[in-house]
Amino acid sequence: MKKMINNPDDVVEELVSGYVKAYPDYIRYSENHRRALIGKKRHKNRKVSVLIGGGSGHEPGFLGYVGQGMADGVAVGNIFASPSPIPIQTVTQEIHKGDGVLYIYGNYAGDLMNFEMASEMTEIEDDIKTTAVIGNDDLASSKDPTDRRGIAGELLVFKVAGAAADFGYDLETVTKLAQKANDSTRSMGIGLSPCYLPQTGKPSFDLEENEMEIGLGHHGEPGIEKTTIRSAKETTEVLMTNIFKEGIYEAGDDVVVLINGLGATSQMDLYIINNTVDDMLKSKQLNTHRTYVGDFITSMEMSGFSITLMKVDDELKKCIDHQVDCPNFTQIGGHDDDINK
Amino acid sequence: MKKMINNPDDVVEELVSGYVKAYPDYIRYSENHRRALIGKKRHKNRKVSVLIGGGSGHEPGFLGYVGQGMADGVAVGNIFASPSPIPIQTVTQEIHKGDGVLYIYGNYAGDLMNFEMASEMTEIEDDIKTTAVIGNDDLASSKDPTDRRGIAGELLVFKVAGAAADFGYDLETVTKLAQKANDSTRSMGIGLSPCYLPQTGKPSFDLEENEMEIGLGHHGEPGIEKTTIRSAKETTEVLMTNIFKEGIYEAGDDVVVLINGLGATSQMDLYIINNTVDDMLKSKQLNTHRTYVGDFITSMEMSGFSITLMKVDDELKKCIDHQVDCPNFTQIGGHDDDINK
Repeated sequence: MKKMINNPDDVVEELVSGYVKAYPDYIRYSENHRRALIGKKRHKNRKVSVLIGGGSGHEPGFLGYVGQGMADGVAVGNIFASPSPIPIQTVTQEIHKGDGVLYIYGNYAGDLMNFEMASEMTEIEDDIKTTAVIGNDDLASSKDPTDRRGIAGELLVFKVAGAAADFGYDLETVTKLAQKANDSTRSMGIGLSPCYLPQTGKPSFDLEENEMEIGLGHHGEPGIEKTTIRSAKETTEVLMTNIFKEGIYEAGDDVVVLINGLGATSQMDLYIINNTVDDMLKSKQLNTHRTYVGDFITSMEMSGFSITLMKVDDELKKCIDHQVDCPNFTQIGGHDDDINK
Repeated sequence: MKKMINNPDDVVEELVSGYVKAYPDYIRYSENHRRALIGKKRHKNRKVSVLIGGGSGHEPGFLGYVGQGMADGVAVGNIFASPSPIPIQTVTQEIHKGDGVLYIYGNYAGDLMNFEMASEMTEIEDDIKTTAVIGNDDLASSKDPTDRRGIAGELLVFKVAGAAADFGYDLETVTKLAQKANDSTRSMGIGLSPCYLPQTGKPSFDLEENEMEIGLGHHGEPGIEKTTIRSAKETTEVLMTNIFKEGIYEAGDDVVVLINGLGATSQMDLYIINNTVDDMLKSKQLNTHRTYVGDFITSMEMSGFSITLMKVDDELKKCIDHQVDCPNFTQIGGHDDDINK
């Protein structure tokens, strides 16, 4: 394990502090809680606020997605652990502008418990209405979609929710669109080598030098199968075939593609993978509306990647194409030019 | 070595192909050469063209920096090897709009030879005037600046040159500004673990489990010193102290900060490093104009990072703040709003 850190007990405080210092025009600490971060840019048409959050170790997720066109604030947990209800409540109070707050988080026991508790607290104590969309795109984690974990596909849900909020829609409509985005999204990934938890120095899972794990989770949760390492093409075919089997993508559909590196897999590999993704989409007569390739939601220095497909209709396309200005996720164009004016 | 590739002999062809498929609105193959890539977005005021290039294995460098506000085309070499003169000439011919082409590349023997040869060929055969700015920001590579290698600081030179071209300046002015950007930039990095060359499977250098190498180059070139791994703070202090020793940054100056991950170092670590960078800049009374943190010019799955400081006056700040629209490097705002209109 070779990390460039200081005291292992301080990694989360220091990463958040370094982040806020890097982007002072974009984000600030809440004065009331060090794990509650508040965005500084907000579209003038936005009524509803969007709150995201989850464990640390997924940088630039989740704090990297606070910015104009995305989330208004983020609650930051410890490494691979949910934020507690207090910072969630704090963010809710500070980003709320009178028309409610949408929470988006992954389908993990700790997140469910803490976000639900925060939601009750803000409703009772602060009279703020909240809704929730729970990311569950990882099809390898369970046959039952309600038991599935959220992985990289959450980025696309943030994107859609942020755009819908910028369009000035009300809480019900923003929530409905974000839920549609989530329901239209499936992901599957593989792991090649583990990350190391800063405080213990222990690997998040074990694999032999010639092994890969198909369906591995973002915190090292077991996948479907350990096999010898296959080629990029064979591996991508396994993932895409499983995504297609979900049966939600039909010939003629438009899809958004997200190829997400987990941290240590090189960008070169991710682009090589895109050839097979592209071939298989064409063979199924699916049209690629937009492709994102990069390290968006990582697992520290884990090696591996995931593929996400989101089926998009005109409404979702308009959201996906909307302009975004976050430190780590910026996109020009779309249907609204008055950002930053 | 765990890579997600197909035939090791095909990695460059496949990564370029996967890249072009991911961003068809941004980049295309030249019809005349598979290693000559031409940008599709060009600012309407741009007269001079900007050509970048270098070896593969640095993704998203260098092809990721073709786009509006940056380079007009890129010549792609093999892994860690210069592109040959023919694709450089091909790109030059296709991006030239009558007012000359600026070449920006790193100070490596192969790049120098091939870009100079291409320059002569285009001058004699195509009557195209070219100039060159040669990146040499890596202060650890030599005491003599003319012998220094170019590393991550090249990104900032691309940024300045691209903005100057968008402002409609002539070749002499664009070149002068890019040269000023280069002369105002210093970088220094460290390596923690090697990358593996796809065709041989061999590591790019050797380090013990508890070792780091200070001053390591982007292709595994030896640095100044092998030591036991130090903390993020101590390591950053070594790098920043050496950058300050160059004597080009004075109290009251504005600087741009670039913290570049080499591939496998987690974003978490890069943000932790930024705390010490920020503290040391403040202690020297240097003002941070803008901070970039991420994996911009990588060495495949090498672990390590570099810090770059660029001293910026009003002219360079205007260039740094100019809007950019590349698949992997996007920035909203600045002094020109007619991009993409």
